[in-house]
Parts: sequence; C-alpha cells; structure tokens
Amino acid sequence: MHVAKNTLPTPVIAHLEQHDLTVITEPGHLQMYAAGTKVIEIPSIRDVTAAAAALRTVLCKGPVDRLLHPFELGQSVAGYLRSLYGIPGMGFQTANVFTNKFAMKEAYKKAGLPSAPAHITYSPEGIGAAAQTLGWPVIVKPMLGGGSMDVHRLDGPESLRELLTAPEYESFRALTVPLVVEPFVEVLAEFHCDGIVIDGAIVFAEASEYLAPLLDCPPEFNGSFFLAAGDPLRASILTLHREAVRALDLRDGVTHMEFFRTPGGILAGEIACRPAGGAIPEAIEHAYGVDIWDAQLRIMLGEDPSVHPIRTEGCLVNYHLPVSPGRITGLTAVEDLQCIDNVVAARITKKVGDVIPPNYNSSYASGVVFVHVDDRSGVDDAVRRLADAFSIEVEPLSSTAKP
Amino acid sequence: MHVAKNTLPTPVIAHLEQHDLTVITEPGHLQMYAAGTKVIEIPSIRDVTAAAAALRTVLCKGPVDRLLHPFELGQSVAGYLRSLYGIPGMGFQTANVFTNKFAMKEAYKKAGLPSAPAHITYSPEGIGAAAQTLGWPVIVKPMLGGGSMDVHRLDGPESLRELLTAPEYESFRALTVPLVVEPFVEVLAEFHCDGIVIDGAIVFAEASEYLAPLLDCPPEFNGSFFLAAGDPLRASILTLHREAVRALDLRDGVTHMEFFRTPGGILAGEIACRPAGGAIPEAIEHAYGVDIWDAQLRIMLGEDPSVHPIRTEGCLVNYHLPVSPGRITGLTAVEDLQCIDNVVAARITKKVGDVIPPNYNSSYASGVVFVHVDDRSGVDDAVRRLADAFSIEVEPLSSTAKP
Repeated sequence: MHVAKNTLPTPVIAHLEQHDLTVITEPGHLQMYAAGTKVIEIPSIRDVTAAAAALRTVLCKGPVDRLLHPFELGQSVAGYLRSLYGIPGMGFQTANVFTNKFAMKEAYKKAGLPSAPAHITYSPEGIGAAAQTLGWPVIVKPMLGGGSMDVHRLDGPESLRELLTAPEYESFRALTVPLVVEPFVEVLAEFHCDGIVIDGAIVFAEASEYLAPLLDCPPEFNGSFFLAAGDPLRASILTLHREAVRALDLRDGVTHMEFFRTPGGILAGEIACRPAGGAIPEAIEHAYGVDIWDAQLRIMLGEDPSVHPIRTEGCLVNYHLPVSPGRITGLTAVEDLQCIDNVVAARITKKVGDVIPPNYNSSYASGVVFVHVDDRSGVDDAVRRLADAFSIEVEPLSSTAKP
Repeated sequence: MHVAKNTLPTPVIAHLEQHDLTVITEPGHLQMYAAGTKVIEIPSIRDVTAAAAALRTVLCKGPVDRLLHPFELGQSVAGYLRSLYGIPGMGFQTANVFTNKFAMKEAYKKAGLPSAPAHITYSPEGIGAAAQTLGWPVIVKPMLGGGSMDVHRLDGPESLRELLTAPEYESFRALTVPLVVEPFVEVLAEFHCDGIVIDGAIVFAEASEYLAPLLDCPPEFNGSFFLAAGDPLRASILTLHREAVRALDLRDGVTHMEFFRTPGGILAGEIACRPAGGAIPEAIEHAYGVDIWDAQLRIMLGEDPSVHPIRTEGCLVNYHLPVSPGRITGLTAVEDLQCIDNVVAARITKKVGDVIPPNYNSSYASGVVFVHVDDRSGVDDAVRRLADAFSIEVEPLSSTAKP
C-alpha cells in the first residue's frame, strides 16, 4: 500500500520486486516499478472501504502472504485490512495506537509515561475551549497525520482567529480528522530514539539529541548526534522508549520516538512505527552497521531481519548542510568536506544553478555530513568546523524565476 | 449504529431516547424513533469510510460519549470507529474477533479450544480446493455475516457446481467477503451458552441444550432448555465458554456461544458478543431474573448492569410452537397452553387468517411456551405435552394469494 507523494528507496523496491507484488496506491504516484508489477489505484490510501475492495480483488486470485505499508500514512488502514482478512503482521489495534496521536497519549497515560496532556476536539471551533483549559500557548495537530503537516502553535485567541479565517490555513480547516490540542511546553532540548523490536524484544535502540529543537530550528543547526554509551540521558531515553514499546504493545517493528527535555523533566513525545526521516537511517548504518529500512522491510515481509549492531566508541553526528533561498551561484565541493578530520561521509545534493524556494521546511538541506566525535562535548566544535567549511552563495530570484 | 432490517425491543429504544441520541442507519430502516431524534443515513452500515464520515458530522457538534451497535452487523465497524476516535467501549480488535469467523477460529486455535478446522478462501472457486483438503461434505459461510445467512452445506463437487451456478444462490455469489470452509461434522447434540462479562469476569453464564440440532431442525423440536446445575455437560460448556471469553479477550459484553457434541467430543462453535436470538433472552429472564438485553445496553452505555442472577432449581424449557405453510384457519387458544402443568408463560404470535409463507427459516414460529421441568429427563415429556396440546390448521394458498 503506497502513497502518491512518497517514493521508496531503490533497494526496498528491488527487494519487493523479487516477490509477486501488487501495489495499491493513489492516483499520480511517483514510484516506478518493474514491468509487469500490478498496480491498483484507489482515490485515497485512507479510504478504508476502497482499500478493502482493492485488496479483495487481489485476494480473489489467491492468498496474500503479507501486506506492506512503507509509510506512516496508510499504516492504520493496512492494520485494519490485516485484522479483517487474517493476514499476518501488525493488526489494527497496534497500527492505530502508533498513528493516532490521541490513542497514543491515552496509552502513555495508562502506562504512566511522562507526556504533555492532550485534549481532543472535533472542530477548529473547539480549540478555544481546550486552550482555555490548558492555558495558552497551545499546539494543535490532526489526530492522524504524517510528519508535522498541519501542526500549529497558537499563542492566544488572536492566532486561533487567524487559523480559522486566514487563507494560508485552508488545508488545516479542510481536515476531516479530529484535532489534538496540547499545551506548548518550553523545550530545552529535543531527542529521538530509533529502535528495532522483534517478537516483543528490543534488539536495537539508540538515543540521539537534535542539534537544536526542531520547531523553528535554525538552518545551521539541523541534525542530531548519538548519545555516548555512558550519557545518563541515554539511559533515561532508552527506558522511556522501552516503556512506550510495551505500552503500545509492539511485537515487531521499527520505531522512531521523540523526547523533549523541559523545565519539568523529560517528556515522551510521539512514537512512530517506521524508520526516521532525514539522514537518521544513514547515521544508524554508519555508526552501528544496522540497516533500519531493511529491517522494516524484512519485518513486514515476515523475514528474519537478523540485526547485529556493532558497538562503537564515541558518537556520530549527522549534520544537514544549510540552504539559502535563491539561485545557487557557488557551493563548497564535497571533497573539501570529506577531507575534514573525523568526517565519516559527506554528500552534497544541490548544485550551482539549483533554485531554493523562499519557503522550505526543516528537512530541506544542501546535503549531509557524518562526523565522528568522542562525546557530546565535541559536538559543538565539530558542527562549527563543518558550518565554517561549507559555504553556499545564492543570487536573489527575479520575480519571474520559476523554482 | 443501526441496520435497516432489524428493529430494537421497545424498552431498549425507550432507554436510548433518555439520552441525546443520533442514529446512523441504512436507508429504509424500519425503526420508529421519538420526534427530534437525529437520523443520518449511510448506504451500508458495513461501509467503514461512510460510517466514519457520518460519525464525524456528529463529533463536530460535540463529544460522543458512547457508540452503540445493537446488532452483530456493524459491530466491527463500530469497534473501528471507537478505536479511531477514542470513544470508550469495545475496540476494533475485540469486535473483529467476535464477528470475523476466521479471526475467531485463529484465536480458538491459539488458546487450544477444540473446534472444527477452518480454511479461508476468497472466491467461490476456491471452495473446491479447500473441500478436497478437508474432505466432503463441507460447510461454507461468509467470513463476516449475521446469523446463518449464506451458510451452505456442500456434499460434493456437484453441490458446489450448483452453488456456483443456480439462481437461488445468487446472494451467496454476490458476497464481497472471504469465505470460510469447514468440514461438516456429525452433530449428535447442539448447545448454547449465554453469558454476561463485566471487567473481564463472567458475572452470568448458563448452558442450554437445543431440543434438536439447528441445521434442518424439525419444526416441532425448535427450542432449548437450560442444563441443570449438576449436569456434567454444563460444567464442560461453562469451561469452554470461559476459555473462549479469555481467548477473545472480552472485557465487557454479552455473549452467545454455540457448541456441538460430535462423535469426537464437544467442539466450540461460534461465539457472538450480543444477546441470543429467538426466545432465549426471555427464557433467561424467566429462569434467572436476568435481563440480557438490558445488560447489553447498559454495558454499551458504560452504565452498571448490576446483574444478580437468581439460582433456581430444575430447568426451564423454551419451546417454539410450530408453524405450517398456508393460511391459518384454526389455532389453539393461548389459555389452553397457559393452564398446562408447570407452564411458566405462553405467547401465541399468529392468528387465524395469517399466512405462513412456503419457505420459512428455523426461527419462524407461532409463538413460544416456557415450561419448567426438574431435569433433562423431564424435557421430552414436557415437549410432547406441549406439541400435543397445540394445534394449527392451515388451508393451502391459492397461487394468487399474497403472503
């Protein structure tokens, strides 16, 4: 089950094409498949009834061994279909609690995990009441949704009024899922934990700290680094991750969980049952020799992912090279980054002539560099060295230029 | 959530109308509600996407405290919607395993309950292969469905061919759900167990034996009787019922489970999470002072059903008075049945002039009589006395008569 706007890494597609593969996807999907791959289009991957009907046309021709949903969008629908048709793998209950932010919060609460309180509301108009109970500012997000799409911080009644009327929030107002309202908490630092769970046991989990909290992250501090083995924060985060995996009753899957250090202590953020985005999977591969996308794929296929992490000294930083809006006129050569001390790998994905649009999100970067440091005290220096070594020059876009 | 062709008992409707009630139902529903009850029609109660959209229009106006699905059809959709929108009550996982015959069998198998093996197939054409593995004759039924609709016994390839071609099986061929194929087992006797589960504990459960196995039950042996307290079969059935409730992880609900005594021992049949049909709920009320419909309703509403069964000596028989196809010209008066020794209650629901259609199903009856006996040795006599005391005379229908 596939989503129009997402594409799968090439090795994943190659792995899938070794099997008798039928793709259920939305119209206009970007992925290219080998000749002969059966593709069934449905209006939306979230339309449970349409997805069930599409799957039935496959089932009528023979048994379906496994149902894959490589992305978070579609996870609960895939779980529903597995439960309904007795297909092995993650059922609806687990799939839902990993994608439904309200169900997740309820599970956290029941298990006693520290987490920001959440109110559920079913209309943009209901946000005001929730905010008054929680106190402004608040964060508002769809109960179901991918990434940080349609997540907004509201400082008070005025910003709520804007959300309910301004043209730029039309996609938010068109949401057809309930909304979750949470108090905005002061984030001193933000962390993530990435894990692999097999048969209920955590066979891999590593904690990382973001260079800066993600919300309004400055472009030159975009990345994260693994916490060293002895870091006490690492132990706390691994414990919370283990408790979340147990609270959400995950038997088999790949996890990506967020954490916030606040003045009141560490809070458990959302946990997803999928590989992290950005350069994190690559960082895990460099640092621990674990291919998290391959693990995700093999788990969904019912194959043994045979995860054997390599313990390494120190910690690896993944650093997203910054961008500037405009047409690129000059760019550091990748070789100039690769030769910096302790750089493990570097990749530049932009080139002179490319146009960077004026509004880009935090995962937009010129490339990525992986650098090894002894411990967290070495991170700032390493990042500064990379930031200094990398330069990007842009010319402003004329108003007629097309990005 | 309501189904077009079903109507609810009047006290249930009266109870519901004390609340702020919105009904989601199929077009052409038969139920009458008080003025002012909001009714939303969707094409089919099984259309998950349409049901979710209908519920959202309710949720946008305010919180929904409880979601009721009084009938088995719609149970898994209601569970799905509860899980999705964080509405308390039975979630999808449990709702599915109680309505999805394949998921149920898998749960039985995992828990070690004795049950007929089941094959799943996705097309009428796949039945043949399953039957060859299991050996003819087989029983074929939709994986999801209410009552005994579209359940067929196939004796061999010839009856399969008929099922796949004859006009009377068109509804079966139009099924859009997978099919479950089971071996036909010789049934020496058939039983049911009706229970109430609160917070995981069985607060009421009683075992009954059908006067005759239900499949092709002769009209004069339609009914069942509670097994007396000391009957060893009662203990076996209550144990299997308890194991099934645990295997399917039911926290709160009303159950109706079937059992078959076969040459190989007692097999667990299907378990449903709803009150039994026919006169069984009334029999439970007469014998144990337990209102099973009220319990179901209160559990769904999150109220305390406060079940306090009265232990009674002996056992109660519920007996369905037979019918004959034709126009009724004569019928025993109910008073003549009420005055028979040990009759607890009697009701006749047909009258002279009523037309009984030529094809009626096993739940079709002229009325019901409840009679008390000391133990199972008294059942045959009691039934014979009732059968002798009741007479129905019919005249054949002319071909132009309309039932």
